[in-house]
Amino acid sequence: MTLKIGVIGAGAIGEDHTRRCMQVVSGAEIVAITDVNLARAREVADKYAPDAKVPESGEALIALPEVEAIIVTSWGGTHAQYVLEALKHGKYVFCEKPLATEAEDCRKIVETEAALGRRLVQVGFMRPYDSGYRALKKLIDAGEIGEVLMVHAAHRNARVGENYTIQMSVTDTLVHELDVFRWMLADDYVSAQVVFPRRTSKALPHMRDPQIIMLETRKGIRIDVEVFVNCQYGYDIKCAVVGELGEAILPLPAAVEVRKSAKQSCEIMTDWKDRFIAAYDVELQDFVDGVKAGKLNGATSWDGYCASVAADVCVKAQESGRIEPITMMDRPAFYDR
Amino acid sequence: MTLKIGVIGAGAIGEDHTRRCMQVVSGAEIVAITDVNLARAREVADKYAPDAKVPESGEALIALPEVEAIIVTSWGGTHAQYVLEALKHGKYVFCEKPLATEAEDCRKIVETEAALGRRLVQVGFMRPYDSGYRALKKLIDAGEIGEVLMVHAAHRNARVGENYTIQMSVTDTLVHELDVFRWMLADDYVSAQVVFPRRTSKALPHMRDPQIIMLETRKGIRIDVEVFVNCQYGYDIKCAVVGELGEAILPLPAAVEVRKSAKQSCEIMTDWKDRFIAAYDVELQDFVDGVKAGKLNGATSWDGYCASVAADVCVKAQESGRIEPITMMDRPAFYDR
Amino acid sequence: MTLKIGVIGAGAIGEDHTRRCMQVVSGAEIVAITDVNLARAREVADKYAPDAKVPESGEALIALPEVEAIIVTSWGGTHAQYVLEALKHGKYVFCEKPLATEAEDCRKIVETEAALGRRLVQVGFMRPYDSGYRALKKLIDAGEIGEVLMVHAAHRNARVGENYTIQMSVTDTLVHELDVFRWMLADDYVSAQVVFPRRTSKALPHMRDPQIIMLETRKGIRIDVEVFVNCQYGYDIKCAVVGELGEAILPLPAAVEVRKSAKQSCEIMTDWKDRFIAAYDVELQDFVDGVKAGKLNGATSWDGYCASVAADVCVKAQESGRIEPITMMDRPAFYDR
Amino acid sequence: MTLKIGVIGAGAIGEDHTRRCMQVVSGAEIVAITDVNLARAREVADKYAPDAKVPESGEALIALPEVEAIIVTSWGGTHAQYVLEALKHGKYVFCEKPLATEAEDCRKIVETEAALGRRLVQVGFMRPYDSGYRALKKLIDAGEIGEVLMVHAAHRNARVGENYTIQMSVTDTLVHELDVFRWMLADDYVSAQVVFPRRTSKALPHMRDPQIIMLETRKGIRIDVEVFVNCQYGYDIKCAVVGELGEAILPLPAAVEVRKSAKQSCEIMTDWKDRFIAAYDVELQDFVDGVKAGKLNGATSWDGYCASVAADVCVKAQESGRIEPITMMDRPAFYDR
Repeated sequence: MTLKIGVIGAGAIGEDHTRRCMQVVSGAEIVAITDVNLARAREVADKYAPDAKVPESGEALIALPEVEAIIVTSWGGTHAQYVLEALKHGKYVFCEKPLATEAEDCRKIVETEAALGRRLVQVGFMRPYDSGYRALKKLIDAGEIGEVLMVHAAHRNARVGENYTIQMSVTDTLVHELDVFRWMLADDYVSAQVVFPRRTSKALPHMRDPQIIMLETRKGIRIDVEVFVNCQYGYDIKCAVVGELGEAILPLPAAVEVRKSAKQSCEIMTDWKDRFIAAYDVELQDFVDGVKAGKLNGATSWDGYCASVAADVCVKAQESGRIEPITMMDRPAFYDR
Repeated sequence: MTLKIGVIGAGAIGEDHTRRCMQVVSGAEIVAITDVNLARAREVADKYAPDAKVPESGEALIALPEVEAIIVTSWGGTHAQYVLEALKHGKYVFCEKPLATEAEDCRKIVETEAALGRRLVQVGFMRPYDSGYRALKKLIDAGEIGEVLMVHAAHRNARVGENYTIQMSVTDTLVHELDVFRWMLADDYVSAQVVFPRRTSKALPHMRDPQIIMLETRKGIRIDVEVFVNCQYGYDIKCAVVGELGEAILPLPAAVEVRKSAKQSCEIMTDWKDRFIAAYDVELQDFVDGVKAGKLNGATSWDGYCASVAADVCVKAQESGRIEPITMMDRPAFYDR
Repeated sequence: MTLKIGVIGAGAIGEDHTRRCMQVVSGAEIVAITDVNLARAREVADKYAPDAKVPESGEALIALPEVEAIIVTSWGGTHAQYVLEALKHGKYVFCEKPLATEAEDCRKIVETEAALGRRLVQVGFMRPYDSGYRALKKLIDAGEIGEVLMVHAAHRNARVGENYTIQMSVTDTLVHELDVFRWMLADDYVSAQVVFPRRTSKALPHMRDPQIIMLETRKGIRIDVEVFVNCQYGYDIKCAVVGELGEAILPLPAAVEVRKSAKQSCEIMTDWKDRFIAAYDVELQDFVDGVKAGKLNGATSWDGYCASVAADVCVKAQESGRIEPITMMDRPAFYDR
Repeated sequence: MTLKIGVIGAGAIGEDHTRRCMQVVSGAEIVAITDVNLARAREVADKYAPDAKVPESGEALIALPEVEAIIVTSWGGTHAQYVLEALKHGKYVFCEKPLATEAEDCRKIVETEAALGRRLVQVGFMRPYDSGYRALKKLIDAGEIGEVLMVHAAHRNARVGENYTIQMSVTDTLVHELDVFRWMLADDYVSAQVVFPRRTSKALPHMRDPQIIMLETRKGIRIDVEVFVNCQYGYDIKCAVVGELGEAILPLPAAVEVRKSAKQSCEIMTDWKDRFIAAYDVELQDFVDGVKAGKLNGATSWDGYCASVAADVCVKAQESGRIEPITMMDRPAFYDR
């Protein structure tokens, strides 16, 4: 039984998910692809799914009777409209992060899905599918380190391009931590503060880099995340969780140890795409299996909403330099864990 | 385009490969299963591939027109007959290790396949599909540590059962090293010596455990492998390659670092099935993709023959205590790398 | 040529330094010991330096003509008076931290020493003598990680006793970081903020533990120090320095790796005295060598003053919850580096 | 109470021990130095011990009434004569390894000392004073890994000079392992085998390098030592001890972890003198303390004899390619542990 999927948005990530569904995931098939640039959609189809249709619009794709589930990988600003359209058709939809660029649109999706009474949306946060974070959460949930008190984290990129803005260090970079820590700790944020250390001279003139974001959760856990997107040396994701009984630390990806030229060393990845490549595979497989089983396991619309609200406050805190409160709407009972 | 596969042998590994083909591998399907115990075959089919036929024999399964490729996971002593039968039908066959229990049978398969002039057989050595060994080989091939001079390795199991014999420490345990080092070094063995250190009191009375196997290759590389199958503490695979410029060491699987109770620690696996689980997935996917592309990449019949011959000599060296020469038949040009 | 030393204060640390001077340090001798409890002084003398005199007071000890240098290990509140007395006699003095319990007294010592125009005082901050911190500083000073931007640190104790107060988490615990980071970075603090994460249930009722102290330096470097004095698992000192080109991390003390019971592990110390035991030895030897050479190298009175002022502000920040500015007196030119 | 020491042999190691006794060790003093080259002896004296006498010969130095203990650091071939002379005078003597270049001379020393009935000789094997080996032994002795079954070791130097011979890879290099493993395991050797892996092209033409020495002990423990003296990358000493319950591994010296240029790395020493520098200090202090207490703790004459006999057999095994038995004289009861 093969799940028939339509893809909206044939950019880099859309192409990658198309390849993934056709060549890696078991039991899935891309039957339709579209894009604002139809030629591009055709090109990706020809490369990985030559039998796929190329409808004129996302709406047309969603309406195709053979399309059983939708993957939204279009430009962020259009995510909400396609997700809402899929909900209207009662179809499963995997939406790449962010669920919406405005918290207000996330709220609309949450309310629509809750009203529908069926969970159809999965948001594309892949870190909870990473074997390292899973092992970490398993250990925490087993009580190995006791009640969690603090998280020390870092998100470092070798460098970013001209189009990267200070705001994106939250909405594109930190947002992964905002999601994964809510999941890992089963907790919510109540405040955020941002401080800017000495600026690296390696950043482009418009950037303030690095920065440290300090979050407080409902349970009182303190999280500090260093975001450093021009760290030069590699893509490095750190996470140490400190509990009442001990500390648990996210593993570095396994790497060959080399002893050479007076150094004992292991390689650090430089391309972020390599770091979570297995997590993307597991995430899509889980979505496909979840649709077939009628039960999704990944990030919900509510998770998408929470990440969005927290990100908005972090951006505000970047500007104000103050401790800013984070307030969420009441969680619809539908999303109770 | 889904590859239609028949499975001969529905024991633990046969069931696992059936599950893998149906739920993990992309583009494959189990259409037939058989076993000496037909009820067992039906049971596995019902669990993972309810539409699969259950023919009366391996030969009948191989003959089914819809079966495009065969997986042989029956008892070792029957491998050769099924592989040869598949070759007779010109069908692709994935044969779990060993290719045959007698070197003579391996030789027959090699000669049959070479005569056929088409590579149809892949032997189920999964270590070359492990990401750690792959990274190690990549680094060696890139000249990072210069010409290889030595390999220090260990193969440790927490414990083995009553049925495990001294001979099996070669044919079931060491055989993985015998295969993976030939692949990693692109070299062949010329002699073997076995020494027995002080015996662990944790082994059953009939076992001599641990042992150290010393191999010499054509290039003069010296390999020592500690085989210790009642080491108590876990399943631990070590491999350090020493070259003219440095040393490269197989990574331990990534694991969460925990600081607790006056210890900094990482978990070591205890179940060998977990250690190479990803390698099994990659191996089967590669076989499926290879069949579709008409080009297999995994271990060849020749590799199966070489492992078999080397294993026979190691068993002889266990008994004699002497340095025993390892002699292979001439490699058919068909298998030139 | 043996340096003749007098010790004021025969408590645990006084006894330890007496033993150290008599049995570990080369070229030193304890010729006098005193204490508010003279019997205790006699006891320590008998144990390690039977020929030592036991004068009636610290002042009397300082005045002894044969005493060439003084070690002050009395109760903190009396440090300043003995240091000033030693300065009056123009004698070298090694004063355990703190230099004084009041910043005002530190200032007096600084001004007295500066007026004297000779450096006679060394404050007992031992971390700059630890081989790990030394290697870290050497690497930073060599430009290996570029300009320093951030420091992430932790100071963890397994547990503290009933007499330990929230204030002591600054004056007894954090003070080591306050000193060692000034030295390591050759920089000064300009502000401090303290946040209290979720409280561990393992702390005694009067304690808020853990806490995170955030410091800013003149150069804009941001330092966060987790102080967690009931972490249960051990005495663990962490320090990661992030620069424009990379990160450098303080090593854990070398420890045997053990693979046992499904774990790969290394021991973590539980007793803080073991962690810096070598540093204490090097520190005292350096003081003795420094006195002989007429040139001390360890922490100066000025360093003692700065640590004291910074500690006072951190205590204030614990109470206020605000970002508090740290202001120092002008540094006498005498202390220019 | 300062121990008065005379040094015979003012080469590099003699100079180093002179400096050590004068500047590092507590409670020792060099009062006499001599050398075949008296000018050289004077030079070293002037540098570190200006008040020291420079007698005309080793014998004259030993006879000086003020000399309480002797350090022998002359050319290896002369060690035995000075040790025997010291024994004749009933004086303590610290003799750098080897105790003698001929096993026969070692035997003579053993018999002389045993006849004397007082332990006066300590042989300069410093590894048992290394904190890593000590931690390893402590753990083994505590039964943490159960009965020892195997040791896997390596002794690697970046490179050796023209004068270094194949034989020296045993007598100068391996000899440290020969001593330290006897001590660590409280066991004796019964056989040795040497194999020569593929030769590194980085060795000088006269050298066969690397080599693997396989030792068997009385208890049946198997030890393999890779000796690789042109490994290019550094001075690297490895030792993994495998027991019935687990494995314990000698730590690398603590080193700063650096993340830079896509690598996580730690420095490896290149100069062997740095690797055991602390062990040399502890060793000499222990000798000095031992003399004062009338009880030496370091390697005995018997240990020196055993290392010498084992080394002789290893050299024979290099030449023969066979498994060679190692036979010792009966241990005089005097040396019972």
